[in-house]
Amino acid sequence: MFESAELGHKTSKADYDEAEPLLRAQLLDAQFDLLDGKQFAVVVLVNGIDGAGKGETVNLLNEWMDPRHIETWAFDAPTTEEAERPFMWRFWRALPPRGRIGILFGNWYTDPIRERVNKVNKRAELDQRLDEINRFESMLVREGVLLLKFWFHLSRDGQKKRLKALEKDPRTRWRVTDQDWHYFDQYDRYREVAEHVLRRTSSGEAPWIIVDGTDKHFRALLTGRTLLEAMRKRLDLAGRNWQPRVMAPPLPPQPPDGRNLLDGLALRQPLEKKDYAEALEHWQGRLALLSRSDAFRDRSLVLVFEGADAAGKGGAIRRVTAAMDARRYRIIPIAAPTEEERAQPYLWRFWRHLPRQGRVAIFDRSWYGRVLVERVEGYCSEADWMRAYAEINDFEDQLAAAGTVVVKFWLAISRDEQLARFNEREAQPHKRFKITAEDWRNRERWDDYASAVCDMVDRTSTETSPWTLVEADNKYFARIKVLRTICERLEAALDRR
Amino acid sequence: MFESAELGHKTSKADYDEAEPLLRAQLLDAQFDLLDGKQFAVVVLVNGIDGAGKGETVNLLNEWMDPRHIETWAFDAPTTEEAERPFMWRFWRALPPRGRIGILFGNWYTDPIRERVNKVNKRAELDQRLDEINRFESMLVREGVLLLKFWFHLSRDGQKKRLKALEKDPRTRWRVTDQDWHYFDQYDRYREVAEHVLRRTSSGEAPWIIVDGTDKHFRALLTGRTLLEAMRKRLDLAGRNWQPRVMAPPLPPQPPDGRNLLDGLALRQPLEKKDYAEALEHWQGRLALLSRSDAFRDRSLVLVFEGADAAGKGGAIRRVTAAMDARRYRIIPIAAPTEEERAQPYLWRFWRHLPRQGRVAIFDRSWYGRVLVERVEGYCSEADWMRAYAEINDFEDQLAAAGTVVVKFWLAISRDEQLARFNEREAQPHKRFKITAEDWRNRERWDDYASAVCDMVDRTSTETSPWTLVEADNKYFARIKVLRTICERLEAALDRR
Repeated sequence: MFESAELGHKTSKADYDEAEPLLRAQLLDAQFDLLDGKQFAVVVLVNGIDGAGKGETVNLLNEWMDPRHIETWAFDAPTTEEAERPFMWRFWRALPPRGRIGILFGNWYTDPIRERVNKVNKRAELDQRLDEINRFESMLVREGVLLLKFWFHLSRDGQKKRLKALEKDPRTRWRVTDQDWHYFDQYDRYREVAEHVLRRTSSGEAPWIIVDGTDKHFRALLTGRTLLEAMRKRLDLAGRNWQPRVMAPPLPPQPPDGRNLLDGLALRQPLEKKDYAEALEHWQGRLALLSRSDAFRDRSLVLVFEGADAAGKGGAIRRVTAAMDARRYRIIPIAAPTEEERAQPYLWRFWRHLPRQGRVAIFDRSWYGRVLVERVEGYCSEADWMRAYAEINDFEDQLAAAGTVVVKFWLAISRDEQLARFNEREAQPHKRFKITAEDWRNRERWDDYASAVCDMVDRTSTETSPWTLVEADNKYFARIKVLRTICERLEAALDRR
Repeated sequence: MFESAELGHKTSKADYDEAEPLLRAQLLDAQFDLLDGKQFAVVVLVNGIDGAGKGETVNLLNEWMDPRHIETWAFDAPTTEEAERPFMWRFWRALPPRGRIGILFGNWYTDPIRERVNKVNKRAELDQRLDEINRFESMLVREGVLLLKFWFHLSRDGQKKRLKALEKDPRTRWRVTDQDWHYFDQYDRYREVAEHVLRRTSSGEAPWIIVDGTDKHFRALLTGRTLLEAMRKRLDLAGRNWQPRVMAPPLPPQPPDGRNLLDGLALRQPLEKKDYAEALEHWQGRLALLSRSDAFRDRSLVLVFEGADAAGKGGAIRRVTAAMDARRYRIIPIAAPTEEERAQPYLWRFWRHLPRQGRVAIFDRSWYGRVLVERVEGYCSEADWMRAYAEINDFEDQLAAAGTVVVKFWLAISRDEQLARFNEREAQPHKRFKITAEDWRNRERWDDYASAVCDMVDRTSTETSPWTLVEADNKYFARIKVLRTICERLEAALDRR
């Protein structure tokens, strides 16, 4: 992997001085075209051997281009807010919106590599994280991000020479610490781990670019030209309205026997008002204790409510929140994305609402919109919603890995029950219950939604985040099933620790 | 202040049961009208004596209304990210957008009161903070926020009775801790401090509402009805397109002798290219060391660049960033506010970009837009920009109090120099230098801008955050003056500690 980067590449000062002004002007032009078009974001990862010129090169990129439209991020120890959320959250927050360039030092590769060098991680664990990274990067690329991954390299001798040179000069001596020599002693191990990581994560969509960091002129020109070339190519495609696309193999057609998950449900389950009142008190009491328990303090809870219009999501949510302290939960009603959200990958508008420890986030509709309404109404391409299943599974896995309990409900009602509820609502004077033309339109696509729901449940019901189908023609029954499920999932999760 | 709240108010269960359904329906209606119109945000502060029913009442409000459009915030110990920014930052972040209700427990009153009770604060310090709070709340109100401040009260006897009753019941005994009895011992002092705080901050725009917390039915109806009444009144006004407005007394006309701050400047200052190169190296070197110094690690730096079109802001900023590590600064180019920003008070879009410790935020145009372009072009009312001077001073004082060094530049060029630069830019092939019709239009209002600049400098050049006027017809001179000023301000600030 590093063979070419150890050839001892060099660019003379004269060559550099001749090439630099043009490169600089071209980069600046590309940056302004990017900013004008706002069609994609550029994410530049900067990794590599210490002393190979990472910082210098990034500063140079900021000098060459307009630094007002570049966001450079460094990540030190996680802040409290970061530590209480999934590992990737701090990077999700750092993604630039379309039109801008984000440079990420100390990104999602830093910890996995360091931990493996120090043998905190087993090889299998590292590989698992690399798989996650691959899938995450693939998602970014398909969401339209131009992702460039630079590895700044120095040979063993090269690094030694550099440290010696710094030590020799009284003006730079302070820059060399014992730590640096300690790192140097680990050079071979670091190189070996890095080579493995780079191989496993150098995909066709997002290959690593190895930069020989020995000569400052060489590395500057190589980095600048690579970035320029990538931006230009992508801008040209964007100018021709190109979108990153892959063909999705079609899903199997309707099963030949015509049966599906939802048909199998007995949607009207018995539960009388009196029994409901008793059960409500019981399960709300249990949830009240669980959500206030010590064991929950370093966990968090994410509830997802999906269901047809008038399935009773709002009513169920209110029975859940009635059991909890308002200081500890937040309900996120999902409406059309805002302008800031539209400039980011699809999941970004959900990432930003993830709860801290000891808190609950309740999503009234959710990221599953992608494989429900967006699929059925054709708001996104087939390839987009097809890849969403795996992306969502990855996302929820990361939540689970961070100690978040994810509970997902599909509230299922029959077509007749929906009609009855629509008619009832239309008779109501309260505008808050108004039925819109869209509600009636959605109703006409009942079967399409049913297929979408079945695919969703099949493809995203995982061990850590299973779906719960709730028979909801009887509201009382549905609310109790929701409460009971939350309690049982929480109890199981809190016990386990 | 608490006299009426110690009368022992009561509402019978029968009366409550009769009143509750209507109140609830009306609140829900008001909430949906708020959500539909998105004309203002509702901020509810909840403070008072422990055990007076704060938590219960807030939970009830969430039950009565649609909790999906209410954000309830509790504030524990500040997170790392909060601790590194101004005291108010965590509350700024919690403000609801227009159309929504935010309920803030443990808000900006909590610390000042607690610190005074524990004698950490002197009376004069408390009063100073209360003045700041008054000005902040006044700003919120003028930005269109409906602000309701509830104080839940219990008499000494009332609190004692409540603690005893909790202790007696085995199911609630655990809720009473030694800490609670310790707080009870401080009751008289707490009441005295609270009374003082409430008097000083009960303004005509945002009066305190004292709620006798003894009887749960009484307090629930009082709180609910107060909120309903306030929302209804405000919704009616909003329906008639009412905006919160005060008449601003006119600023003095042009001084009779026609002189102003800018006229007094010799805009073309000598500095040859060779001397410039030397000075640039000197000051950039100094800034490089300062921004990387240990002393800067628990401080932060905010730079504000304002100036006419083509005054050289971008060029100056690039000379500043060239001296710093890209990982440590962020440039915030101020463009039109996004949809999320427009749903918040004016300063919100700047609050969100404040730097952490050890970091630098560079604003390319800033909150001063309010008293420059918005004033001159009539984008906001006279009353709005008139109050902005004081609001900006408060904002910058809070930055200074949090250890942030604020350095503000007005880059001043002559009308002729601007014309020359416009013509030069129009001759350039690069679109990034394009001159828009708006640039030419702004130019025609040169004198209006000049007046606005002079007022701005007069009214917002404070001891902690003075303006620096930069003679900028000679770009070399301007850039050096900017660099030198930053270095000197930083040195003075870091020395002081």
